[in-house]
Amino acid sequence: MRRTLLTAFLVGTVLGFAGPAISQVADPLPSWNDGDTKQSIIEFVSKTTTQGSTDFVPIEKRIATFDNDGTLWSEQPAYFQLLFAVDRVHELAPQHPEWKEKEPFASLLKGDMKAALAGGEHAILEVVMATHAGNTTAEFKKIVTDWLATAKHPTTKRPYTEMVFQPMLELLAYLRANGFKTFIVSGGGIEFMRPWTEKVYGIPPEQVIGSSIKTEYEIRDGKPVLVRLPELDFFDDKEGKPIAINQYIGRRPIAAFGNSDGDLQMLQWTCTDQAVSFCLYVHHTDADREWAYDRKSSIGGLDKGLDEAGKNGWTVVDMKQDWKVIYPVANR
Amino acid sequence: MRRTLLTAFLVGTVLGFAGPAISQVADPLPSWNDGDTKQSIIEFVSKTTTQGSTDFVPIEKRIATFDNDGTLWSEQPAYFQLLFAVDRVHELAPQHPEWKEKEPFASLLKGDMKAALAGGEHAILEVVMATHAGNTTAEFKKIVTDWLATAKHPTTKRPYTEMVFQPMLELLAYLRANGFKTFIVSGGGIEFMRPWTEKVYGIPPEQVIGSSIKTEYEIRDGKPVLVRLPELDFFDDKEGKPIAINQYIGRRPIAAFGNSDGDLQMLQWTCTDQAVSFCLYVHHTDADREWAYDRKSSIGGLDKGLDEAGKNGWTVVDMKQDWKVIYPVANR
Repeated sequence: MRRTLLTAFLVGTVLGFAGPAISQVADPLPSWNDGDTKQSIIEFVSKTTTQGSTDFVPIEKRIATFDNDGTLWSEQPAYFQLLFAVDRVHELAPQHPEWKEKEPFASLLKGDMKAALAGGEHAILEVVMATHAGNTTAEFKKIVTDWLATAKHPTTKRPYTEMVFQPMLELLAYLRANGFKTFIVSGGGIEFMRPWTEKVYGIPPEQVIGSSIKTEYEIRDGKPVLVRLPELDFFDDKEGKPIAINQYIGRRPIAAFGNSDGDLQMLQWTCTDQAVSFCLYVHHTDADREWAYDRKSSIGGLDKGLDEAGKNGWTVVDMKQDWKVIYPVANR
Repeated sequence: MRRTLLTAFLVGTVLGFAGPAISQVADPLPSWNDGDTKQSIIEFVSKTTTQGSTDFVPIEKRIATFDNDGTLWSEQPAYFQLLFAVDRVHELAPQHPEWKEKEPFASLLKGDMKAALAGGEHAILEVVMATHAGNTTAEFKKIVTDWLATAKHPTTKRPYTEMVFQPMLELLAYLRANGFKTFIVSGGGIEFMRPWTEKVYGIPPEQVIGSSIKTEYEIRDGKPVLVRLPELDFFDDKEGKPIAINQYIGRRPIAAFGNSDGDLQMLQWTCTDQAVSFCLYVHHTDADREWAYDRKSSIGGLDKGLDEAGKNGWTVVDMKQDWKVIYPVANR
């Protein structure tokens, strides 16, 4: 018996059968409840990867793009990168006595996020530039890595990288096991994500796309460095997402995953005028286990996108109904 | 005997030995003459991929970046993309009667490239914008593909994609067989290269970095398109190369390959302050089989880079001495 199994394994491996054979046996998405949502994912993967299927897609064209905030991890009560920026403001305050009297910094230092953000996008940009620029790319990577190692979410008290969605981790792995190349396409900072996405999501830096600030090449003490400048380079949201996908990947994805109106253009670019394609919105419906918000939320608002999903038959995940768990079971 | 071989093959395949076992037997770089140049490449690949070697590099960090013009294919008597632009000027001329009197177009239409380029960088940019923008990304891809299918080089009369360097094709394949991810980082247009790099070099679109113009997302007749605007987005040359490498890849390469001073910063970024790294310049020394040029050439000038290569012990390919053949044997 043992020899027979080994032979089957060898033959299967050599002929490239191992992947599909295993995925037919074990449930590739154990944290997803059975139902239409889960079924739509499995059907799409099955039809695009089955040789001879009319919807078969060659492996090099299996490109899947994922938003990050609200799609792969939580984004409440504020984008985690903004919470990082606030922590940085506190850390840098001793070097900036003028912040005590200067908005939005003064309010942030008093712990009044709402007043600080009253300045809108301009205020956020100012905070981001003051806390994200002026260092080298290597220094910034260390700052982010060090912060993530100790920072805790204000309400869950979990490390931020443990507030990723377990069902989405399974989905990423399932797609990759079926030959998909998975990319992040996020409004968040590209260099804020890259230090940890490989470990947490299995997505390497070269498959992470995000907003960016300009950098400058410099030789310091005989060593080349890239200095991060306080100047926006690209804002990877809304129309910016298909533009960035074209710029970085150079192919249209056949699958796209988001949770807000900021992802709508990425989903349109993927699922309009492409016969074989799959689009999915994560709908935050679980106030007990995570947060519940959609049309009127200032963070991760999902309004027009929800209508478009209905019209176009895109898959909408009801987090409360479709997911058995939200976060990975802490393994510490 | 047959069964024994099959068993060995199966075991080798399952254990992942097939690659290295084969490369120890067959010469991975058959078009390279034996000598220091070839040896330096093989030693670098060997030490970075041998488990237990002090210079072993984990597979995810094996990033290799290649310039294109003059490094992977020829670039004389002018960058091939410029020859494409000139052909486009002729093709588009009937729609632009004003070009008959307007420089640099008037000179180009008379076949006087030298007069046309007297306007320097500004003239080139004007020609590029007039011939590369104003279409959608899908349309431009078709224009490039159609041109490459029929266009011939003015002196060799070969299709341009058959003026790639056979020894470099072998080098790309050799690196990939050893777990390296190969990227193009070129001053040429990113969307001029992507339609053909996968077929010709085995490098997929998402691993091609180049200069770019801005695009705009638009819905036309209910279908999303990206429109190419006549506005420079990024010039991927000199300091731009390390900046783009950081932006697109997010890791420092451990190997970099170029042929001109425009590649110098990419080579510095790769080989300065990184103990395990490899930098190589292709030196055009073969006036009989290709072209011979370096310090004083206005195309692909290699002056400061040649000095730096000497100082830093980078490998310099002498095309005449090191390469058995230049171009692939035509297979038509």
